[in-house]
Amino acid sequence: MYDIIVRDADVLQFDGDAPVLLPRHSIAVSEGYIVRIAPHVIDEPARESITARGMLAIPGLINGHAHTAMSLFRGVVEDVPIEAWFNDHIWPMETNLTAEDVYWGALLGIAEMIEAGVTCVADHYFSIDAIARAVEESGIRANLAPTIFSGPDETEQLARAVDFVTRWNGAAGGRISAWLGPHSPYTCTPDLLARVAGEARRLGVGIHIHLSETAAQVAESRVRYGKTPVAMVRDAGLFESPTLAAHMAHPDPDDVAILAAHNVSVVATPKTEMKLGIGVAPVTALRAAGVTVGLGSDGAASNNDYDILEAARLLSLLEKHRHSDARVMPLGVALRLATSDGARAIGLGDVTGALREGLAADIVLLRRNAPHTLPVHDAAATLLYSARADDVDTVIVAGRVLMRRRRLLTIDRRRVLREASRRAARLTRRSDRRVALYPIYQG
Amino acid sequence: MYDIIVRDADVLQFDGDAPVLLPRHSIAVSEGYIVRIAPHVIDEPARESITARGMLAIPGLINGHAHTAMSLFRGVVEDVPIEAWFNDHIWPMETNLTAEDVYWGALLGIAEMIEAGVTCVADHYFSIDAIARAVEESGIRANLAPTIFSGPDETEQLARAVDFVTRWNGAAGGRISAWLGPHSPYTCTPDLLARVAGEARRLGVGIHIHLSETAAQVAESRVRYGKTPVAMVRDAGLFESPTLAAHMAHPDPDDVAILAAHNVSVVATPKTEMKLGIGVAPVTALRAAGVTVGLGSDGAASNNDYDILEAARLLSLLEKHRHSDARVMPLGVALRLATSDGARAIGLGDVTGALREGLAADIVLLRRNAPHTLPVHDAAATLLYSARADDVDTVIVAGRVLMRRRRLLTIDRRRVLREASRRAARLTRRSDRRVALYPIYQG
Repeated sequence: MYDIIVRDADVLQFDGDAPVLLPRHSIAVSEGYIVRIAPHVIDEPARESITARGMLAIPGLINGHAHTAMSLFRGVVEDVPIEAWFNDHIWPMETNLTAEDVYWGALLGIAEMIEAGVTCVADHYFSIDAIARAVEESGIRANLAPTIFSGPDETEQLARAVDFVTRWNGAAGGRISAWLGPHSPYTCTPDLLARVAGEARRLGVGIHIHLSETAAQVAESRVRYGKTPVAMVRDAGLFESPTLAAHMAHPDPDDVAILAAHNVSVVATPKTEMKLGIGVAPVTALRAAGVTVGLGSDGAASNNDYDILEAARLLSLLEKHRHSDARVMPLGVALRLATSDGARAIGLGDVTGALREGLAADIVLLRRNAPHTLPVHDAAATLLYSARADDVDTVIVAGRVLMRRRRLLTIDRRRVLREASRRAARLTRRSDRRVALYPIYQG
Repeated sequence: MYDIIVRDADVLQFDGDAPVLLPRHSIAVSEGYIVRIAPHVIDEPARESITARGMLAIPGLINGHAHTAMSLFRGVVEDVPIEAWFNDHIWPMETNLTAEDVYWGALLGIAEMIEAGVTCVADHYFSIDAIARAVEESGIRANLAPTIFSGPDETEQLARAVDFVTRWNGAAGGRISAWLGPHSPYTCTPDLLARVAGEARRLGVGIHIHLSETAAQVAESRVRYGKTPVAMVRDAGLFESPTLAAHMAHPDPDDVAILAAHNVSVVATPKTEMKLGIGVAPVTALRAAGVTVGLGSDGAASNNDYDILEAARLLSLLEKHRHSDARVMPLGVALRLATSDGARAIGLGDVTGALREGLAADIVLLRRNAPHTLPVHDAAATLLYSARADDVDTVIVAGRVLMRRRRLLTIDRRRVLREASRRAARLTRRSDRRVALYPIYQG
C-alpha cells in the first residue's frame, strides 16, 4: 500500500544538462520518498491517488537564499540605491520586528512559495526559531541559518545560533536542516568568522553567508584586509565546512578558483540584484569552473516575490543577453539551477531536487491547458519560458500534499493574509521607524 | 443610465512619470468611453455594475509589437541563434500556414492577452484579414499592419495591403486601425519602401516596421547602402508618416537624433531580444532624447508569451542592471511604457492607454489578495514587481466586458485551445517543413 500515487503525469528528468520527458508515467510515494516511477498506471492500492493527466510533474523548486519574513516589507521602498535602501529603510524597520511578526511574515512567504511550486527554502534571518515553527507547521522543507553580526553581543549570538542548530538540525522528520549564518565579511570580523567556522566544524553543519554582493564591498575589503571577501572568509576557515555564498556578483578569477577548489556553492538572486543595480553573479563562468550554482529570491523587500520559476527565466534571459548568444544557459541548465543544482547548493542534493526513486517525494504538478501554455511543443520550454506560478496545481513535500488544485491544505491562508497585513501596516508606519540597531551597511 | 459602473476600485493614474492612486473611486462608462471617475460610489443606474472593492483598476496594457498567430509556434525551437532560428525553423514553418491557421493562432494569442490584461495589440503579419476577423470577434483593440516583403509579387502585396487598410482602418466600431507593414530594410528595397511611404501618405496612415534589430543588420546596411537602417528608411520617406520602429536595439547617436526629430516611436521587445541574445533597445537613452517608447512581445515563437506586465518588469530590471543604478526606470516609467506611452507609440494615444474621462473604456481590474501581492504598501510596486498575469480579474475593452472573474466572455476558450493545438501539431511536424518561401534572414 503506497501513501500516494501520482497517475499519468509527464515527468521531467534530466540527462546531464538535457531535460528528458517521461510521458504519461506514474509516481509512487511511501513514507515521504519516491519509491517507484513507472511508464504506465501503477495498478496498486494507495491511500491517495492523484490523477495528473496532461500535467507536468517537476521536482519541487529550491529557493536557495531567502529572508522569508521580509514578505512583510514587500513594496515598502522602491527604486532606491542599496545604501539608502538598507540604512534609511530596511534596517530601521527590521529593528521593530518581534518574533511573532517574523512568524507571520514567514508563513506569508511560505504560503506564497508553496503556491509557486517552491518546496524548499534556505532562509537566513534572525528570530529564526519563529521561522522554524512556521516551517514545521506548514510542511515546507528548509535549511535555516540564524543570522550573526559582529558586535558587543556576538558571543551570545553565536551561542544562541549553536543552540538553535543543536535543537533543529534534522527536526520536523528531517525536513529542517540548520546551518550557521554569519551575515557577511563586512559585518563580521575575521575573529568572529573563525569562531563560527570552528563551531560549524564541531557541529558538522554548513555555513550560509552573503558574499561579494557589490563591487563596493569588494573594494572595501581590499582596503581593510588587503584581500577580496572570498579570500578573507577562506582565511577565516569558513570553507572547511560546506558553504553557501549568496549573491557572489563580483568574484575575480582568483575568487572563482578558490570557490571551485573548496566546493563552495553560489546562490544567485537575479531579480534582487538587477533591481538594486548591484550586479548579478557570472553564473555561466562559475559553472564552467565547476562551481555549483543555485537560485534564490533574497527577501521580498528587494525581490518583491519568492518565485523561483521567475528567477530561472530571468537568469536565463540575462545570461543570453550578457553573452549575446542564444545558446548560453539552455533550458535544461536553467531548470537544473532551480532544482537539482539548487538542492546541492544548500546541502540537500542527496535528499531533494529531482524526481528519482530514493529521493524525497517533493513533487510539483503543473497544468498546461491555458492559452499561454498551449500548444506544448517542448515541455521544458513551456515550463521555463511560458508557465507562471499560477499554473502550479499540486505541491507535495516529503510525501505530504501541501496544495491540491491550488488550495493550501496546511496553512490557514485567510488568517495569514490578515495577520501579516496587519503587522506589516504597523511595522512600516514611518513615524514608528527607529534608528537601525544593526551595523551600518557599508557598500 | 450608464452602461457600466466599476465601483470602489483603487484607480491608477499618472502625474507625469509618477504613479498616482485614486483610492476607492468609481468609473462610469457610456458608449465605449470613460465618462466619469469619481471619489465615491456613483449612485446612478447602470446596465452593469462591477464591484471592485480591494482591486486595482489600471489602463488596459498595450502590446506594441506582436505576431499574434505565432502562438502556434510557442516553444518549437529554443536556445538557437537568430539566423538558424529564422532560416531553418520559423520561416519554413510559416510557409505552411493557411489563413485558417492564422485565424486560430490569432484567437489563441488574443485569449492569452485578454487573460493577461492586454487590451490592445499592434500586429504585423501576413494573412492579416484572418487576424482582423479574430480581433473583430474577440473584442480586443488592434492596430494591424499587413507584412510586405520585396520580391516578384511586391506590387501585388502592396496593392493587397492598401486594400486591407482601406477596408479595415476604423472598422469594428473604431477598435481596429490599419497601417502599412513593410517588413524591414533588409527585406525591402529602398524603392519598395518609397512606394509604401507614398501609399501611407496618400491613405493618411502610419507604418509599422522592424528596424535595427541586430548589430549585424546595421553593419550589413552600412555595407549595402552606406548608411544605418534608420537613415536608409528615412531617406525612403517612411518617416513622413507616423512610424513605429520595432526593436531598435542598435541605434547610433545620429539614429537617435533622427528618430526624435521625426517623432518615430520605438517598441522594445525585451524578452525576445534577451532570449535571442540580439541586444535590447537603449530605452532610457531613447526616452531622454524625447523618443516615445512602448513595449511589445514579438511573436510567441521567440517570446513564448504575450505578457506585457512581464515585459515591463523585465525592461525595468534590465535598465537598472545596465546602468548599475536602482533609480533608473522607476516604477511609473515602466508602467507608462506598458500603457500610455505604448498607446502613443502605436498611434492611439488619444484613444486609450490611461484611465481618464474621454478616453476609451479599456479597463483592467486586478486582484491583490494573494500571498504574493500582500501586503500592499505601494499599489504601483505591487503591480510592476509582484503581480502576475493571473491576478487580472476583469478586462473591459471599448466598454465591453471581455473577461469577468477570469472567464472569457467573447471567446470559446475550449474550442480555441483544441483547434490551435491541432493545427500547431500539424504545422510543426518536422517532415512537413518546407523550404522557406520568404527571403533568407540576413543577420
